[in-house]
Parts: sequence; structure tokens; C-alpha cells
Amino acid sequence: MSLVKKPVNGMKDILPSEMQIRDYVQGVIKDTYRSFGFTPIETPCMESIANLSNKQGGENEKLIFKVMKRGEKLNLETANTESDLVDFGMRYDLTVPLARFYANHANDLPSPFKALQMGNVWRADRPQRGRYRQFMQCDIDILGEPSNLAEIELILATTTTLGRLGFRKFEIRINERRILKAMAAYSGFAQESYDAVFIILDKMDKIGMEGVEAELKQEGFAQEAVQKYTDLFRGVKEAQDGISYLADVLGDHLEADVVSSMKEIAASVNACKTAEFELVFDPTLVRGMSYYTGTIFEIAMPEFGGSCGGGGRYDKMIGSFTGKDVPACGFSIGFERIILLLLESGFTIPKQPKKTAYLIEKGYPGEKLAEVIAKAQEARQQGQQVLVVRMNKNKKFQKEQLTKEGYEEFVEFFKR
Amino acid sequence: MSLVKKPVNGMKDILPSEMQIRDYVQGVIKDTYRSFGFTPIETPCMESIANLSNKQGGENEKLIFKVMKRGEKLNLETANTESDLVDFGMRYDLTVPLARFYANHANDLPSPFKALQMGNVWRADRPQRGRYRQFMQCDIDILGEPSNLAEIELILATTTTLGRLGFRKFEIRINERRILKAMAAYSGFAQESYDAVFIILDKMDKIGMEGVEAELKQEGFAQEAVQKYTDLFRGVKEAQDGISYLADVLGDHLEADVVSSMKEIAASVNACKTAEFELVFDPTLVRGMSYYTGTIFEIAMPEFGGSCGGGGRYDKMIGSFTGKDVPACGFSIGFERIILLLLESGFTIPKQPKKTAYLIEKGYPGEKLAEVIAKAQEARQQGQQVLVVRMNKNKKFQKEQLTKEGYEEFVEFFKR
Repeated sequence: MSLVKKPVNGMKDILPSEMQIRDYVQGVIKDTYRSFGFTPIETPCMESIANLSNKQGGENEKLIFKVMKRGEKLNLETANTESDLVDFGMRYDLTVPLARFYANHANDLPSPFKALQMGNVWRADRPQRGRYRQFMQCDIDILGEPSNLAEIELILATTTTLGRLGFRKFEIRINERRILKAMAAYSGFAQESYDAVFIILDKMDKIGMEGVEAELKQEGFAQEAVQKYTDLFRGVKEAQDGISYLADVLGDHLEADVVSSMKEIAASVNACKTAEFELVFDPTLVRGMSYYTGTIFEIAMPEFGGSCGGGGRYDKMIGSFTGKDVPACGFSIGFERIILLLLESGFTIPKQPKKTAYLIEKGYPGEKLAEVIAKAQEARQQGQQVLVVRMNKNKKFQKEQLTKEGYEEFVEFFKR
Repeated sequence: MSLVKKPVNGMKDILPSEMQIRDYVQGVIKDTYRSFGFTPIETPCMESIANLSNKQGGENEKLIFKVMKRGEKLNLETANTESDLVDFGMRYDLTVPLARFYANHANDLPSPFKALQMGNVWRADRPQRGRYRQFMQCDIDILGEPSNLAEIELILATTTTLGRLGFRKFEIRINERRILKAMAAYSGFAQESYDAVFIILDKMDKIGMEGVEAELKQEGFAQEAVQKYTDLFRGVKEAQDGISYLADVLGDHLEADVVSSMKEIAASVNACKTAEFELVFDPTLVRGMSYYTGTIFEIAMPEFGGSCGGGGRYDKMIGSFTGKDVPACGFSIGFERIILLLLESGFTIPKQPKKTAYLIEKGYPGEKLAEVIAKAQEARQQGQQVLVVRMNKNKKFQKEQLTKEGYEEFVEFFKR
């Protein structure tokens, strides 16, 4: 037999100690999001390969686990390319399936539709520490709400959840694709080079302002444009109120409703937030996905370099399924990173039920077993956790192990 | 664009109304099983194809969704057979992954190990009403417990869960592979024909005793053996106590500990059960999987023809990974069937939080929005569900729709 004991390369088994925290966190997330009126949905883990290969997913489309055709549809001899052999693929995110779901069921869904999704996604990335090829995503989305009420509710729901999980002193960074564009236009970059500019801007975290400046010049952009562009970012940094500063400087390049909407979001979030965090306008925030059309945001944790989640507005994606655009905005928590942070901080679940172990000596008469179990049943009915096990020869060691699992009380039943 | 709106063939999108019931049922299952000391684990949805193709899965192995190799490992030109192109497969059950998990982590796990798994499995079956190609399974297993304490706890945990979900007047049918074999041996069937006999016996539900008798004869088995065999089943049916009857008649064909163990299980379960059900000895119960070695059991619901779950003892499977056998016993709830029964019975979730919708008129001043949301935040903190949405032009229709979603109270905010 050549059975393989390890999980498949890049994926992991989850042991009880981690699983209990994952279940608890999922519960907090679901309860909190439900209190905001988000309703759970689920889609299959597989999608038609066409839906996963339409360029919306950017780099993720190169990382798809593909599912082979079956039965008569699979014809090895006449197959010329990979695509002749494949009909489905494992989803690489929850946003594409949500857009398909909405296109398929819009008539049966309320408007606006507030969706909550928790589910696994798969990416055949190179495995590395803390990055797995199967991982949980946790998304909320509001479909059919054009106004910034969507952004406000998404940010409040997400930050309330993080607060309930004990996170504090984190940041929500916010920006707008239209601000990104207005800053590039004002500086004199040509529209077709925006994407190239933003890819360099996105490195700000790592290489700093000087690094961005150097790379832009190296890429061959006009000295003057680069100067104007970097001056803008310096100006925002020094300004009391970054948005107002940009509104003044950018003038007609920036639509007035972008400014008022960003201010409204900040005012409402700051007035209503229940968690300890800062909403920070960050004009260097880019976010990779090409489908974003308006506001974009990201969670930054002091304990964790890099983002712990993010989202934004993508008003054009549902139209790619239906031909008719529907306003859409979503926020995704980086579930695996949240779990990693909680595990590393030695997080323990509050309010656990009392855990008792009943140890039954070997040879305990079978006809008296029922009495022991009846006693356990009674305690379980009252909400306690009761483990009924045979007593091992090395009882001391057994109790030590059970204590590590959280059992605090032991009741022993001897054969006589 | 050729995007596909439907989910892939044979799999389904789950809408909020069903999803809320699924989440509730999952919660009850997890809470109840935890009170019995079962701890949750999770394995990847994909397994090495070798682990899924070792004959333990029987017919299910023909139904595997296979995952294509990626990158350099995929070589279309040199591939002769399907297996050259495939490295992983989607799991078709949770038992094979559990055995692999246990083989991989036994040193880090308590003994006995009581595992709870809830997860999707995939089978490329022909789609039909109520049978999907992706579906949830919900398994509890006790590994490392040789005595019938495992069976007793599994049956009590499963039936307590079903009782909490409102099911009553169902049956748990129980049998033993060794009783099946003893009955066949006593009747004079040759050992190598047991499987063929059991396949026919398994049809009892559908074709009745006469049908089984006819098929056995048609298959060419000796008249006398068939007569002795069917007389046994008739005898059990007429007996006060089926097990004692068989113990008397079968004599040395049946090991004494099988009889006493079955009696102990019945005594303990009947003394300690919290749900309204009957434990019924059913000598015609076969269960398909070839890995069972001892007790086998099945849930039968009056509302549902066929089984709503089942399980049994499989003491040899872990040894196929490690070379060393570990006693193992499991019980699986047919999650999708349970959900179907609850949906059809018009089940509603007990103790829902109060649901209020805030309707905000179009043109409501942005600077006053924060007050509305702050009010919502306060109610949410107190455990209520508050939906904040824009007021539609057709407010009456909007309220009707929200009422259907369970919103009972409406608060309206006008622009002046």
C-alpha cells in the first residue's frame, strides 16, 4: 500500500486546539454581521472554468486548481490543450461566485442585498509559512446600494467584529480609485500609464517615497510629472485634513461628490464606531484587483506587517454576468491572518462550559455502565461537557493529558 | 462574454432562507457533540489521489472529481492515461481523511480521540432530486476505544442531537457484521459467497422476505441454505428478544461476547436516552461499506424512506495507513436529508433576535446620517438585528418584502 499520511502539499490539517478558536471566531463574525442585517449564503466550491478565466481575477487566474472532465466528456486521445480536459475549477475568491449567484437569483433577493459568505478558496500558490493553498475567506457585500451608506455599514460591521475579538489600536486605511486617478491626471501622467504608476505607488510601504520617486523616473516618466506627483503626497502628509487639501489642489480634476462622500464616511464611522481604531485617509492605498471602481479600504494591524483584510466598491462586475450594472461594495476579513494573530497572542475562548471527565476502571460491570452514563447525560443537559472514557493503566498520565485539554474535574468509577 | 449564471451541474447555490436553518442546525450539532467531549477537526477538501483509490471507498471511488496536475508536472504530450494527469482528488467522504489525519497526528492526539467533522464532500453522481454532487457530511468518530462504550456514546450523542432538532419517533436500527456472518455460516453458505448473500439481503426493505428468498435461489444457492436462512429471519421477527433467540439457535457460530455486547448497548442506550426513539435490533441491516468490522447502525425516519445517517465500527482502516490497527467507530448524520426534512416541515428557528429595519428617505442630509447609524449601533450592541437601508419610492412594497424576511418593526427617517 502506498497511502500518504501527510495532507496534500500546501494544505493543512487543523487540530482541535486551533479548530476551537476558529469555530469561536466564526461564531462571533456571524453573530455580529447578522446584527447588521447581513444574511448568509453559500455557493459551490467549484465554478465553471469560463467564470474563473475572464480576467477579473488578475494574477489569481494563474493559480486555479482545475477539475478534470469525467466519463464520456473526457477524451484523452483527441485533447490538444489543457482546456479540452477541464470543465470546472476551484474558486480562488468569493467575489466572482457572489456576482454569479446574484446574477442567477436577483429576482429572489431583496434590494439592497446584504450577503455574508464564509468559505474556503483555493490558490495553487507556492506554499510558504502562513500561506496555504486552501484557506478560509470571510466576506460581506452589499449589492444594490449606490450611496456611501454601504461603505459606512461595511466598515462599522467589520470593525465591530474585530473589536469583539479583542483587537484594538488597528487602522482602517481608506482611499478612492477616483482620487488615485485625479492625482495622476493632475500630475500630468497619461491615462494609459495610470496602472503602471499605481503598481509603483503600491510599493510605498516597502520602498518609501524616495523609492517610489526613483522607480517612476527609472520607468521613464517625465521629471516634472513625478515631481508634481510626489509633492502631492508630501502635501497630504503635512496637511491637517488630507481630503480638503487635495480638493483644493486638484480642483476640477476631482469630482466634488468624491470629496463630500469621503468626508461623510469619515464623520459617520467616527461618530458610530464601537471598536478602538483609526480611520485613516491614505492616498497611497492602491489594492490590486482591477475590478474596483470607487472607495477602497484595508485593515492594518500593528502586530502584523501587511493587510489583514480589505475591500472596496466594484460597480461593474455584476454587469459582466447580466449586461446590467449593479452597484456593489464589499469587505473581506483575512480570516487566516486573524486566526494566526489570535493563536500567537495565546488567545483563550471566553465562557467555556465546565469540562468533566468520568474515568471508568477496566472490568467495570457492563450492567452498571448505564448508571454512569445517565449521570453524564444529566450534566450534559445542563450545558456541561462530560467525557466518558475508560481509565488507563497509567491514570496519572491520563489525567495530566486531560488537564491539558481543559478538563478540570475528574470522577472515577471503580469496578468494586 | 460567455459567463455562466448557473452553478455547475449537480451543485447548488444556497439562499439565505435555507442557509439560516443550516447554520442553526450546525450550531445545535456542534454544541451537543461538544457536550459529549467530541472535538472538532478539519482536513483539506482534497486528498492525494492514492488515498482515494485504495478500494476502501467501494463504489464511491468511481465518482471522484479529479484535480489536474499543475505547472511543470503537467505534461499533456507524454501522458498516456488519466492517472498521468492527476495528483489530487476531491474527498468523497470524511472517514478516509480522518484515518489519514489520525495516522499523521496520533502522537498529538488524546486516546481515545473523539473527533467531530462537518464538511463538504464531492461525488460525481448522476444529479437527481435531493441528491447533489457537493454535500455536507457531519461525522463523529471515536478512535482508540475497543469497548462498546464507543457505540453507546455515539448513539446517545447522535440521538440527543436529533431530539434537540425536534425529531421524534424515529428508529436507530442496529446489527453486527459478526451476526450477519454467523447467520450465513449457520445456514450453510460458503464464506466466499457471504458478500453476494448480503447484497441480496440488503434489498429486504424494497423486495421483502419473499423477494430475498427468490433472488437467493435464482442466484443458485442451495435450497436448504436459503430455507434455513430465511427461517432465521422469521424466527427473529416472532421472538420476544431477537438477540437471545439468535444466541440460542446459532450456538457456537456466534461468539458470546457479541451477544453480551449488543445487550449492553441496548440496556445503556435505553436507560440513558433523552430523545424519543426506538433502538431496534435489525438482523437484515447490512450497510454497504466494506470497511465495517463490528456493530453497524442506521437512522430511520418515518417521514423519509431510506436512511438519514448511519455508521459502525471499522477497526482495520487506520492500520491501512500505519500498519497498526486502531479500534474505530463512527456515526454520520445525513445532514442534507435532515435539512430537507426540516425545510419540508416548515421548521422555524427558535429564539430569533428582534429584527428592525431603518428606512432612510432619499436626500436625507449626509451630516445627520451619523445619528441614525448611532441609534442602530446601540440596538445592535443589545443583541438586536438592525438593517439600515434607503427608503424605496414604493415604500409599501419595500416593507412587504422586509416583512417576508422577518423584519417586524420599521423606523422611518425623512429628510425634513
